[in-house]
Amino acid sequence: MSSNFERTLNDNLAKIESSLKEYVKLDKDYGIGECMAYSLLSGGKRIRPFIVIESCRLFSGDNFDIQKALPFASALEMIHTYSLIHDDLPCMDDDDLRRGRPTNHIVFGEANALLAGDSLLTYAFEVLSENKYVSDKSIRLATKCLAKYAGYSGMIGGQMIDINSNDKIKSFEDLKNMHLLKTGALIRCAMELGYYAATDNPDDEIIKDIDKYAKCVGIAFQIRDDILDKISDSKTLGKPVGSDEKNGKITSLAFMSVGEAQNMVDSLTNDAISLIEKYCLKEPVNTTLIELAKYMVGRSS
Amino acid sequence: MSSNFERTLNDNLAKIESSLKEYVKLDKDYGIGECMAYSLLSGGKRIRPFIVIESCRLFSGDNFDIQKALPFASALEMIHTYSLIHDDLPCMDDDDLRRGRPTNHIVFGEANALLAGDSLLTYAFEVLSENKYVSDKSIRLATKCLAKYAGYSGMIGGQMIDINSNDKIKSFEDLKNMHLLKTGALIRCAMELGYYAATDNPDDEIIKDIDKYAKCVGIAFQIRDDILDKISDSKTLGKPVGSDEKNGKITSLAFMSVGEAQNMVDSLTNDAISLIEKYCLKEPVNTTLIELAKYMVGRSS
Repeated sequence: MSSNFERTLNDNLAKIESSLKEYVKLDKDYGIGECMAYSLLSGGKRIRPFIVIESCRLFSGDNFDIQKALPFASALEMIHTYSLIHDDLPCMDDDDLRRGRPTNHIVFGEANALLAGDSLLTYAFEVLSENKYVSDKSIRLATKCLAKYAGYSGMIGGQMIDINSNDKIKSFEDLKNMHLLKTGALIRCAMELGYYAATDNPDDEIIKDIDKYAKCVGIAFQIRDDILDKISDSKTLGKPVGSDEKNGKITSLAFMSVGEAQNMVDSLTNDAISLIEKYCLKEPVNTTLIELAKYMVGRSS
Repeated sequence: MSSNFERTLNDNLAKIESSLKEYVKLDKDYGIGECMAYSLLSGGKRIRPFIVIESCRLFSGDNFDIQKALPFASALEMIHTYSLIHDDLPCMDDDDLRRGRPTNHIVFGEANALLAGDSLLTYAFEVLSENKYVSDKSIRLATKCLAKYAGYSGMIGGQMIDINSNDKIKSFEDLKNMHLLKTGALIRCAMELGYYAATDNPDDEIIKDIDKYAKCVGIAFQIRDDILDKISDSKTLGKPVGSDEKNGKITSLAFMSVGEAQNMVDSLTNDAISLIEKYCLKEPVNTTLIELAKYMVGRSS
């Protein structure tokens, strides 16, 4: 990891955390703020908001202003967080531990956890609509993008396949299609949100390229997750290891060895880099999204 | 009920139903469409979308176009429907019957019902963002409005009070404040959404008046609900009667008799009418929202 990339990573992380902290200082709080903050401020890698900021930086060139990206980045992290809260509920994965801490419903009870999730999901769109640094058109594009990728044809679609069709996943291709929705959709969303923060006049060719980049990164990310669930320990990972096996979930390792899986991660990473390179290498040169793809190959948590 | 009002009611209802039916024909369906459609198309009074359309008509004057209002109206009904699906879940009210039919989780299981709710909530914002008949600014105003009234400071705030603070409701005032959020928020939202469908240059004085009208109508609506839960039968009502008492919920009837409650409904209705009259009686005269307030006083389901 280059020290430049590390600095960008840490800078962004600090700004994302402080933005999320501001957002959960609610105007009026009827008791839900604490439940929302508990999960939203529990750490996490913040990969999705990081990508929003860096996609905005890449496509803004010399005109980059992080204020344009932060509301979109924060909204996306709220969507990701709500999905984890609902995923952990007893009627879904029934998980007690997340990011090294008891899950939301263990602390606040199921009803509050359900509402905290609903509330974060709803608040995400409020936060989008209040972005003062972009045009009304950018906000409309971002709203449509977030709803589409988070909804029935994106992340929720993937969750539906996950809970109802485990026995229908017969090949790595089936599994990949599920993960392209369940995990990949929000990564694509991150790239597009960053682009709409940079411009309200998007170019279809660029959208196609960033979608393909995000697909490669998303699948690589998920396979690396499968590998870590197999080879890591719960302290490093911050959540129980072997939970996929415990829950009878089919992962990429049902179709290939750990070594083959890591080779696929490497190869997807190279594809991702070749798709984004032409934007990164033109003036002003900005290689962060290339380095992000490389970083994700080797992460240990 | 005047025959003009009845015709408007039925015309709108037909258009709302057909709009909702179109929206649940999903582009890509990974199995959630049926769960969403089951609850969204299960009848219901459609009061909120009706108000969106009529508010838009009132403030559009001679320029009224129902196409501007229908996406906002449909989105709001999706929000209302998701809240019912989640409210009925075992960890919330644990209800088996809704609008005369088994609740969503009884038919599809808890996990699917949870996701169907999440999906309708998310889809509502997609539908808003795709309204082709209004400006980007109208869409931004509508997005903010829907998120605010449906979220932590509106409907969800009311639900939080409802599930956590039943023993804190010591007076009718406490109860009213809870219902101003739980039920009132989406009625206010309906009035504002209709107004934003009519104009992207809203007047603060008008917003104040329609908010007050909606507050009166919302509380009257809720008290009438309490009365019906006491005096009606499950066949007329389409849901179990006496469920408030069964669940140990405090209603307005804990603080007053049925007769006093109906008097309060009448008085709130008069207040609502006096707030909206000046808009209704100027040319072109349009008294639908006056008649709606009257209609709600006497409804039997």
